[in-house]
Amino acid sequence: MAKKLFNCISAKQFDRELLLELFVLADKIRVICKTKKGADFLGNLLSHKRATLFFEQPSTRTFLSFNNACQILGIKTSDIRNITDLSVSKGESIEDTLKTIHSYSDLLIIRHRNESIASNISDIFQNSDKPIPVINAGSGSDEHPTQALLDVYTIYRAFNGKIKGKCIALIGDLKRSRTIRSLIYTLTNFEISKYILISPDELKAPDDLIKYFNYNCITYLESNKLNDISEADIIYSTRIQDEYDVNNESKFIDYTKYYINKENINLIGKNSIILHPLPRRLELSTDIDSDPRAWYWKQEVNGLWIRTALLAYIFDVGKSISKYYKNKASKR
Amino acid sequence: MAKKLFNCISAKQFDRELLLELFVLADKIRVICKTKKGADFLGNLLSHKRATLFFEQPSTRTFLSFNNACQILGIKTSDIRNITDLSVSKGESIEDTLKTIHSYSDLLIIRHRNESIASNISDIFQNSDKPIPVINAGSGSDEHPTQALLDVYTIYRAFNGKIKGKCIALIGDLKRSRTIRSLIYTLTNFEISKYILISPDELKAPDDLIKYFNYNCITYLESNKLNDISEADIIYSTRIQDEYDVNNESKFIDYTKYYINKENINLIGKNSIILHPLPRRLELSTDIDSDPRAWYWKQEVNGLWIRTALLAYIFDVGKSISKYYKNKASKR
Amino acid sequence: MAKKLFNCISAKQFDRELLLELFVLADKIRVICKTKKGADFLGNLLSHKRATLFFEQPSTRTFLSFNNACQILGIKTSDIRNITDLSVSKGESIEDTLKTIHSYSDLLIIRHRNESIASNISDIFQNSDKPIPVINAGSGSDEHPTQALLDVYTIYRAFNGKIKGKCIALIGDLKRSRTIRSLIYTLTNFEISKYILISPDELKAPDDLIKYFNYNCITYLESNKLNDISEADIIYSTRIQDEYDVNNESKFIDYTKYYINKENINLIGKNSIILHPLPRRLELSTDIDSDPRAWYWKQEVNGLWIRTALLAYIFDVGKSISKYYKNKASKR
Repeated sequence: MAKKLFNCISAKQFDRELLLELFVLADKIRVICKTKKGADFLGNLLSHKRATLFFEQPSTRTFLSFNNACQILGIKTSDIRNITDLSVSKGESIEDTLKTIHSYSDLLIIRHRNESIASNISDIFQNSDKPIPVINAGSGSDEHPTQALLDVYTIYRAFNGKIKGKCIALIGDLKRSRTIRSLIYTLTNFEISKYILISPDELKAPDDLIKYFNYNCITYLESNKLNDISEADIIYSTRIQDEYDVNNESKFIDYTKYYINKENINLIGKNSIILHPLPRRLELSTDIDSDPRAWYWKQEVNGLWIRTALLAYIFDVGKSISKYYKNKASKR
Repeated sequence: MAKKLFNCISAKQFDRELLLELFVLADKIRVICKTKKGADFLGNLLSHKRATLFFEQPSTRTFLSFNNACQILGIKTSDIRNITDLSVSKGESIEDTLKTIHSYSDLLIIRHRNESIASNISDIFQNSDKPIPVINAGSGSDEHPTQALLDVYTIYRAFNGKIKGKCIALIGDLKRSRTIRSLIYTLTNFEISKYILISPDELKAPDDLIKYFNYNCITYLESNKLNDISEADIIYSTRIQDEYDVNNESKFIDYTKYYINKENINLIGKNSIILHPLPRRLELSTDIDSDPRAWYWKQEVNGLWIRTALLAYIFDVGKSISKYYKNKASKR
Repeated sequence: MAKKLFNCISAKQFDRELLLELFVLADKIRVICKTKKGADFLGNLLSHKRATLFFEQPSTRTFLSFNNACQILGIKTSDIRNITDLSVSKGESIEDTLKTIHSYSDLLIIRHRNESIASNISDIFQNSDKPIPVINAGSGSDEHPTQALLDVYTIYRAFNGKIKGKCIALIGDLKRSRTIRSLIYTLTNFEISKYILISPDELKAPDDLIKYFNYNCITYLESNKLNDISEADIIYSTRIQDEYDVNNESKFIDYTKYYINKENINLIGKNSIILHPLPRRLELSTDIDSDPRAWYWKQEVNGLWIRTALLAYIFDVGKSISKYYKNKASKR
């Protein structure tokens, strides 16, 4: 069976088979990691690889989860998180900076406000004499494919693998959320029954997503009322992405109508789950954190394991992991 | 014997037995570390653990010594040292940021200007489904317990374990020094004969410390004259903590009266030692660095070993280290 | 044979024998590193060492290549790249900060705008009770010895070891380029036939370099015309170092006359090579990147291997590497 993924740039690259393989692999890795022996086995798999994490936009969880995922597999990491550290401040082009990473590393994990950088640089690396994988850890307001991986992995775990037929409500800044776009692309592999797109009128899903729904014959409903979440099995809340404001326009939007808290949580069904890519502001009240339907912290943890699985897959050690799991970890 | 320490938040957690155990362990670790074989043994002990160092206030030595201490034991580290890297800049609460670290790490080492953050977050972690230790690497002007560990470890080494009956002079900004508070708490385990508290009137020891002395029947003397150091076995000098100024008040204080240098060093007894938590400014002149009584650079080095011992203790590998020491290192 | 290098502060420390030894070692390391087994062998050699990278000036490639070189040999790294992280911001002297690194590390790799810091601190460390090596990763506009290593290593590889008799053109900001000075010192070991020094009149090679040429009876020609590159086997282009401007003087210099691009590349001989320390701005057009004479990206990659070789040499594991190479890697 041929490997399907070398770079990870867009969620459009994921198909159902690949996703299930990653989910199963992530499940195995988290079990293996529970013992020192298992952790040391994993930590030796890619001890000969070195990654560079290049984060031009701020990040806590994506940075930390990728750094830790690398460490779990023994990949050594370097990071560039502060643009002033850089030769960019000496007038270097971003392409030259990234080619430098290519010269020294076996993997580039990149977050950049420019939507096409990850894709362009992966083409350049691919056509070089030393192709190395590129992982998109967030490209402007466009895509965040590994966020989609952890979102769908969480849904997969919450519903014991049964995603088919579920209804999902996407709430908030649908216009500028890269996680929303990547999530929709990824979920297309699993026959979602209906999308409920709940947002202020100013932040409705952009044309390209509406076209995507229509082209793929996906059922969706646009709404500006939070009440419409009651039908959904999966509630996906998002922060207002005001870092992409052109003119402080976010200030004039009443986002409070889309806040979920103790007062209105029972709009949501008993067996539904609430997700959020985090960080959050006030759209998800901390007073519901201990509600059994609040799955966003579990979702965050899942990010570590699915990203570890992705790295293992890309560097082709999935089979070794499965073999170890079969022989050792599963028998404990 | 039950483990006494999981989190390390306040120096009040230390008792005599624990301290001696840590000192002995640190002594063993520094011997074992001298050979490659020994270093590789240590570096394998906690190879399955991952730590995050979260430093919201600037640090050279605390950061570096913890990062190196982790490396000595094989703990992989991630660090967050630049607040603008963070999702905090997207409006995330500090609690959510730290919970993210909890999701991906096995240990949090935290420095923060907010005095209660370390304590609060350690409660939150403790009550989660995955308790992980928290080490306070400096909480505002309140506490710096691991600094106290290395201070007292240095005294222990300088006087061959005989701390009882020693007289200590604490000099400088007693009002706002977190290292002073933590040091006093820690020394309470060792029957110090007398504290001489030397400071400008504006920077006298705060009420809570004076009450602490009185409550514990500890002998102390308050003074604003450097001359009073002559009686002391241990001279502990500190920097003026002007980062906690409210109104630039430090500018109006004559700190020069408390400077120690070649001119006045002979106020100090021949067998006394001079300590300083560093960084220093002019309160300790570089012209006394080579004086045999100047122990502050040794003190700094001790920080590496006692922090390594603390990590080993918290993660319960002290016994393995002692066993290795007995069989191998001590026989060289 | 005694080890010739402990610190690496100036390119004047390199002699021909040492350079050839480093080049041969670098060649072996890059072969060994191609297999996981080989990489794991290298990664175990210095697993007991810890380095600190202290970069006070911005850097992408020097930082990344040293960090990765350390990782290749198993050296654990800490880094300080953001001066505000530091106790310097609490008024600490640079000497005290670096002594702190000495307390915790086995190696200091330092870039600093102050030209004498690396040299001074290496003297301090050398005379301490625990001498540790210091590597100069760029000292103001003075020296950058490891850049010279990779430059000459690249020339060595490009001409199959035959450097003798070659003619080199140095182009651009000869006045303020630390890489130029270090390169000239290093090349003195290899009987270069002639230096062609091409620069705007305002940026001519400084007096000390002209004296150096005269004192060592080295043939050179000063010119302000790019056309004079045609005679050279090695074309070494450099960026204008405007970070050392006192009064924005760079703005008034016509640097465009020294640009190399598709239009004028054929001034250069067929078998000549083009080098550049990078980062570049417009002085080397990207439109010649795929020309076979463009060796600057290979040159960058060579930086990783020669720096790894340097570290291996300093820590005395060169012989182990050669032995492994002879027994294993060379037989594949």
